[in-house]
Amino acid sequence: MTASRPGLPIAVATPASWIHAACERWPLLLADHANCEKKAASTAIALMFAYTDDRRLAMRLSRLAREELRHFEQVDRLMAQLEVPPQRLPAGRYAASLRAALRSSEPARKLDQLLCGALIEARSCERFGVLTGGAGGPEAPRLPAPVAALYAGLQASEARHFEFYLQAAQQHAEAAGGDWQARLAALAAVEAELATSPDPEFRFHSGPPPAAI
Amino acid sequence: MTASRPGLPIAVATPASWIHAACERWPLLLADHANCEKKAASTAIALMFAYTDDRRLAMRLSRLAREELRHFEQVDRLMAQLEVPPQRLPAGRYAASLRAALRSSEPARKLDQLLCGALIEARSCERFGVLTGGAGGPEAPRLPAPVAALYAGLQASEARHFEFYLQAAQQHAEAAGGDWQARLAALAAVEAELATSPDPEFRFHSGPPPAAI
Repeated sequence: MTASRPGLPIAVATPASWIHAACERWPLLLADHANCEKKAASTAIALMFAYTDDRRLAMRLSRLAREELRHFEQVDRLMAQLEVPPQRLPAGRYAASLRAALRSSEPARKLDQLLCGALIEARSCERFGVLTGGAGGPEAPRLPAPVAALYAGLQASEARHFEFYLQAAQQHAEAAGGDWQARLAALAAVEAELATSPDPEFRFHSGPPPAAI
Repeated sequence: MTASRPGLPIAVATPASWIHAACERWPLLLADHANCEKKAASTAIALMFAYTDDRRLAMRLSRLAREELRHFEQVDRLMAQLEVPPQRLPAGRYAASLRAALRSSEPARKLDQLLCGALIEARSCERFGVLTGGAGGPEAPRLPAPVAALYAGLQASEARHFEFYLQAAQQHAEAAGGDWQARLAALAAVEAELATSPDPEFRFHSGPPPAAI
């Protein structure tokens, strides 16, 4: 495992074999990414319902959900230009396995959900970075230029999103008690395994293909 | 039952007794309305997932969901100004009973879901209108001025929303077959009963309180 990117709460960097697969399978990457943006909006709204009383959180989640939907629209427009059809894809293991690690009783669950949001957004941010930053060397496959341009633009938004979730988690831990740093480390370890171990389904947040390991 | 407002697909007008209750219970009306805006966004996203292949529909639903979230933010800001706390409210009978009338197999289900969206948005539009149009005569209770001002502004958006759903339903029926007018009439009859018959829970889309009938 390689070291994580500085400033990101994730524990390890995306393996080069995932980046290679993503550049080769970019139409599937785009189709799954479009679904991820919808899912991110829908998860934010679910948190708004779960924590109705937390007015400040609800307002920020609402703005975040609107931004995720704008990203969906951007990805979809690009897919249309590149003649990539939308696809209804079976969910990969990533989000479900990460959510299985969340604690079930409050206030611990709220902390875990916010940290989980931070990790997913941080992984997205990191992947947009490695997909557009020339990681893998000059011989490595690259994304088509319009996809790389979109992803370079989205990286900054995803950085704001993980910072928001992380800050909300810290504020919740300060108010409700709980060692957010220890919990972040525990969840980041789960996330790292999911993002780097062989994964039968290629997805935006998957591990690398088994054959590539 | 009184006649419906011209131009709206709903079959009957809201009874004066519901308007009376709404003006008296406006803090509950606002709290439920905030939840309705979140639910409307979440329903639009659910339709985006259900009909991934319908790119044009997905794009329009995404914009609609963003607008519902902006409305949530507007309602929440007004609630904060008026010191009305957000409330997690048990769902009323309206949406669940209306959805129970939808057919389960495609392409009929898609038509029904779009018509259901049109009816809910049309009822919202009609209620914003009657709540701000002085229905009930000069002696009738009225909403506080800032609530009435917000609702007058939202009425036009809800009109665009029901028109969008209705147009999408017509386009689907033209492409997939199905008598959308007959189906609209059948669902509008269910909706009319829910919006006008005595209802134990007061909500934005409820029937009037039993005692008021």
